[in-house]
Amino acid sequence: MSSSVTVSSHPLDPATPEEIQCATDLVKRAYQGIDLHFKAAGLEEPPKALLVDFLDAEHNQKPLPTIPRCVFLIWYIRRTPRLFEAIVDVTNGRFVHHIELPRDFHGPVDRAEMNEAAQAVMADPQVKAEIARLKIDDTTVVLDPWDYGVDGEATRTRHTQVFMYMRNPENNDPDSNHYAFPLDFMVIVDLCEMKAEKIIRLPLGPDSTTTPPEYDHRLQRNRPRTTLKPYQVFQPEGASFTVTGHLVEWEKWRFRVGFNWREGLTLHGMSFDGGSTFYRVSLSEMFVPYGDPRNPIYRKGAFDLGNVGAGVTANNLQLGCDCLGMIKYIDGCVVAADGSPSPRPSAICIHEIDNGIQWKHTNHRTGKATVVRKRQLVLQTIITVANYEYIFMWYFDQAGEITFETRATGILSTQPIDKDAAVPWGTRVADGVMAPCHQHLFNLRIDPAVGGHQNSFASTDSVPIPWDETLNPLGTGYVTEHKVLDRAGPVNDDIATGRVFKILNENIQNPVSLTPIGYKLVPFRSQLLLARPGSWHWKRSEFCENSIWVTKYKDRQLFPAGDYTNQSLGGTGIKSWLQDRPNVRNEDIVIWHTYGFTHNPRVEDFPVMPAEMAQVHLKPYNFALCNPTIDVPPSNQSFNQSVTYKPPMMPEPEAIKCCKSNI
Amino acid sequence: MSSSVTVSSHPLDPATPEEIQCATDLVKRAYQGIDLHFKAAGLEEPPKALLVDFLDAEHNQKPLPTIPRCVFLIWYIRRTPRLFEAIVDVTNGRFVHHIELPRDFHGPVDRAEMNEAAQAVMADPQVKAEIARLKIDDTTVVLDPWDYGVDGEATRTRHTQVFMYMRNPENNDPDSNHYAFPLDFMVIVDLCEMKAEKIIRLPLGPDSTTTPPEYDHRLQRNRPRTTLKPYQVFQPEGASFTVTGHLVEWEKWRFRVGFNWREGLTLHGMSFDGGSTFYRVSLSEMFVPYGDPRNPIYRKGAFDLGNVGAGVTANNLQLGCDCLGMIKYIDGCVVAADGSPSPRPSAICIHEIDNGIQWKHTNHRTGKATVVRKRQLVLQTIITVANYEYIFMWYFDQAGEITFETRATGILSTQPIDKDAAVPWGTRVADGVMAPCHQHLFNLRIDPAVGGHQNSFASTDSVPIPWDETLNPLGTGYVTEHKVLDRAGPVNDDIATGRVFKILNENIQNPVSLTPIGYKLVPFRSQLLLARPGSWHWKRSEFCENSIWVTKYKDRQLFPAGDYTNQSLGGTGIKSWLQDRPNVRNEDIVIWHTYGFTHNPRVEDFPVMPAEMAQVHLKPYNFALCNPTIDVPPSNQSFNQSVTYKPPMMPEPEAIKCCKSNI
Repeated sequence: MSSSVTVSSHPLDPATPEEIQCATDLVKRAYQGIDLHFKAAGLEEPPKALLVDFLDAEHNQKPLPTIPRCVFLIWYIRRTPRLFEAIVDVTNGRFVHHIELPRDFHGPVDRAEMNEAAQAVMADPQVKAEIARLKIDDTTVVLDPWDYGVDGEATRTRHTQVFMYMRNPENNDPDSNHYAFPLDFMVIVDLCEMKAEKIIRLPLGPDSTTTPPEYDHRLQRNRPRTTLKPYQVFQPEGASFTVTGHLVEWEKWRFRVGFNWREGLTLHGMSFDGGSTFYRVSLSEMFVPYGDPRNPIYRKGAFDLGNVGAGVTANNLQLGCDCLGMIKYIDGCVVAADGSPSPRPSAICIHEIDNGIQWKHTNHRTGKATVVRKRQLVLQTIITVANYEYIFMWYFDQAGEITFETRATGILSTQPIDKDAAVPWGTRVADGVMAPCHQHLFNLRIDPAVGGHQNSFASTDSVPIPWDETLNPLGTGYVTEHKVLDRAGPVNDDIATGRVFKILNENIQNPVSLTPIGYKLVPFRSQLLLARPGSWHWKRSEFCENSIWVTKYKDRQLFPAGDYTNQSLGGTGIKSWLQDRPNVRNEDIVIWHTYGFTHNPRVEDFPVMPAEMAQVHLKPYNFALCNPTIDVPPSNQSFNQSVTYKPPMMPEPEAIKCCKSNI
Repeated sequence: MSSSVTVSSHPLDPATPEEIQCATDLVKRAYQGIDLHFKAAGLEEPPKALLVDFLDAEHNQKPLPTIPRCVFLIWYIRRTPRLFEAIVDVTNGRFVHHIELPRDFHGPVDRAEMNEAAQAVMADPQVKAEIARLKIDDTTVVLDPWDYGVDGEATRTRHTQVFMYMRNPENNDPDSNHYAFPLDFMVIVDLCEMKAEKIIRLPLGPDSTTTPPEYDHRLQRNRPRTTLKPYQVFQPEGASFTVTGHLVEWEKWRFRVGFNWREGLTLHGMSFDGGSTFYRVSLSEMFVPYGDPRNPIYRKGAFDLGNVGAGVTANNLQLGCDCLGMIKYIDGCVVAADGSPSPRPSAICIHEIDNGIQWKHTNHRTGKATVVRKRQLVLQTIITVANYEYIFMWYFDQAGEITFETRATGILSTQPIDKDAAVPWGTRVADGVMAPCHQHLFNLRIDPAVGGHQNSFASTDSVPIPWDETLNPLGTGYVTEHKVLDRAGPVNDDIATGRVFKILNENIQNPVSLTPIGYKLVPFRSQLLLARPGSWHWKRSEFCENSIWVTKYKDRQLFPAGDYTNQSLGGTGIKSWLQDRPNVRNEDIVIWHTYGFTHNPRVEDFPVMPAEMAQVHLKPYNFALCNPTIDVPPSNQSFNQSVTYKPPMMPEPEAIKCCKSNI
């Protein structure tokens, strides 16, 4: 029986189905006869010291060192609270690390387990009685199991909380928008016992006097509009990028794509025009706390990466639906509960877009206009977490810029509300339906390598010069003030001073500006966590207390709310890493940017939400010797083949009769 | 001789060439034998009371009232300080308004006058001596005349200041990037006398030991890259919009396009899905103050709309260069110095774009995914003001959203700098070339009509609920707090409280949310004016002191730094309109949003700047009854015709050999 794999893959390539199978086989053999429930499996990335040697050798075309391929795993002994984690070296077929975790740690949820919980709820006599009380057909009931959260009680017992809805009685269709029909009770399930533990009544049930809107076109009263004409992207000579395995090359950019169960898409070893920029970037965590202070909503706060996984929930992207133009898809793989590999086909798409004009100048003396359009490369991944969808997009720009875009869409998590009632923590989005206020707080982990691994983090303010008869005689002058961060910790933001955040390599001077080469971080500025200091939400979501943090690099320090976020009690996230505040100037550092949306729902966000967008940018700052796009060919019609608008068979507006004399 | 025109145009249609000619003819007849220098001419929009009646009649398909067409004009008696403004009724061929302005007011600059000034500089013996001192060929000298600004001296004399450069001596080409060769002196010109008045020496001249970069591809050392493949937009059934005269209709949107010499593109009478949203929106002004505190830079601060005009400087947009896809162009017209109409062909382009995904939801119970893509309509205009370009774009979204995007591009205004010198107010962007720090501060004027003309302005914060055993037992709750503005004035922003700005119609309740219908203003949050309070920059740029202002509507109150900004002394802008702080709750109000860039140049911004982008959004907030895009057809491949990526004749990565047993 096999317990190792021989592969020719790159150390950063995601774990393959074969590697996952080998790893779970090895674990199963170690637990012979015991029923295991696998929770997660994916590539254990090599320690940085090893990987940097490999990447340097690769860059310099030297012989490549051998790095064993490793898989990280989490599993339970089924229907018990016993949780384990391990790292398995699949090249050599052996455990590198293998421990049982303390009872305060809980593994992520998974769809299989949630489905079991839903069945347990529907089988429960008390639940049946509740459904009978509401006089509804139990085949129309729809269950929405959610991460349980923490209220300080029975924190060592694994729970899920199940919100209850019913289908639209008018169509009773499995794709009807059940979020328009919240029931007035919810159920707490003990996941070890796998049975309903408690029923909680919510304020009043749905009031269905008017028909709520459906998002599924098939169920809508009216046919879709017919006004929209096709808009197609035509790339007659193919795409400008190449993908070789997981290596992407496009317009001076070169980087590797990774994928794992938790973060989903990750990016590695990024260089621009031959210069090193970033070692690794990824969305590291997100937290979605709700503002309704009442039981049971006060426990509602989801860590969608740590509790579920952006790789686990990655959508299978479809040509022409999720993606427009010439598309390269990349598959992912996670683990099923039984240890078999669970493919995530087309989890990532790669394509180009045209984003308007990159630069233009007209010399008014000669009339000569030069225009260069802004072509970008996009990597997109979409996740579905129960009611919500998140779209994550990395944009690469010919100017050396990187943009990370978050789009929040999907369906609001709703509750019932009394007829005519108003609450200050939610919006009525349909008759008897309230969508509570909530926040989406994301953390972007940026492991820079600007010109190398020794980097510094600086804040630059623009500050008026004091009035001075000689130095500032008209009071118009201002200067930049520059502070380099010495010790790890949170960094303050200040829009009023025009603060700019820079990642610098103080060892390399730009020969033009005579200042260190760098990259600028343009944060998405937003409200931070609203839950009170000392609350469970606050204790658990350590990264949500500040918008920017800088730490000294440490292997395996990837998740700023801790490695195990499900029903977590806090104390293992980014704040716990900052006890000794090490020096971070001219060191190997990591930057963590927290941003998000305070989402106080609008009527327009129902029955499905138009995507709300946030962008974070990384831009070269005295990194290159000039504008990196001056050699992009000028924009012209023979290349772009635009077309003049022709009105759809309408008369031209009447010609103007001019200057008819009337004096 | 004619002095009026009969037209069939809409009251909001821009002034036609014929109307401008009629108006200047009328003025010329009134000044028979006197040489006039026309500075500006364009539509004088009807007073709101008249126009609202017209628009209501039009909306209700009733007989249309007659509104005379009027042209607003500004002119000088040539080579004198005597400045006049008038409103001419071209329907009836008569003056409606006609005054001479006080000597503290100055008309905008124009290209003809700047060219005369440049000739005067080159003819001046002292300038010839300076050029001889530098031992350069005077045919290589390039002049950059700039708005003069204010230093408190001789404010009633009309001036321009001319910055001096030379062509790249290596190519001596008229399109060489002369901003890489700043000379060490500049010249002040008296525009009435039309002669050089003073020469000012700048710190040291250029040091051309290395070759600075060229932006013009023809002059670059290397050929353009060949890696970029064509990316074309194909709309086989035509565009989804219609343009009838200046009326645009697209996907539930309906509005009129206007154009004038000063603001360029304006938008009027906007409705979404039959509901009134905005009466008029436009960029109203911009100010570009420089941070170098020394003479003569301390006077450098341009009001590019009031001093020059976004219509006057509007680019002639080109198919396939400035615009991609199926394009409708709209022409504009301004006035030449001699009073003849000066066309601005293709000053505005209109086209559609695909902006990724509008919304998505996957029902995990059935596996059914529904995706709707985000189609947008774009109106674009581009202006060139000496060295800089600005791209202004209005995006209309199917979800009822409007986005105003500003892109700053073009070439940095440069100065010479000593070898190896560093200054805290600028960046070295090439050998001997310093680009000073500066700001770009824009003001967007928003005249709302959300469900009608009586609107209110509100700020909503998200605020934690205090700890309370009953009301907030776990400390997780938060509520929204809502403040409606009572009196006209500046409005404070606060990101920390998640402040949301809303334009409400308190007379109309949304039947779903049971709250007033509204639109949200999502500002672009940025640093405000850095020049000291009391400075000339500060006095003149009244709108730059706060990010959001609300005023009560008043006819002709359009320009928040005053009507005459050239060499202005302040006191006629938005602050002067707020003396009595009138009630603005449930009134006809105007919102003014100031935003911008503090631009501390990067090496990457030279020799031409990758566009820096800012977006301001207007989004429906409990305006509709549900998501306005649920009836957009689902995204599918037969409509979108995407294509799978094929690698360009490269071998596929080697297949992985799996699970070879080694134990």
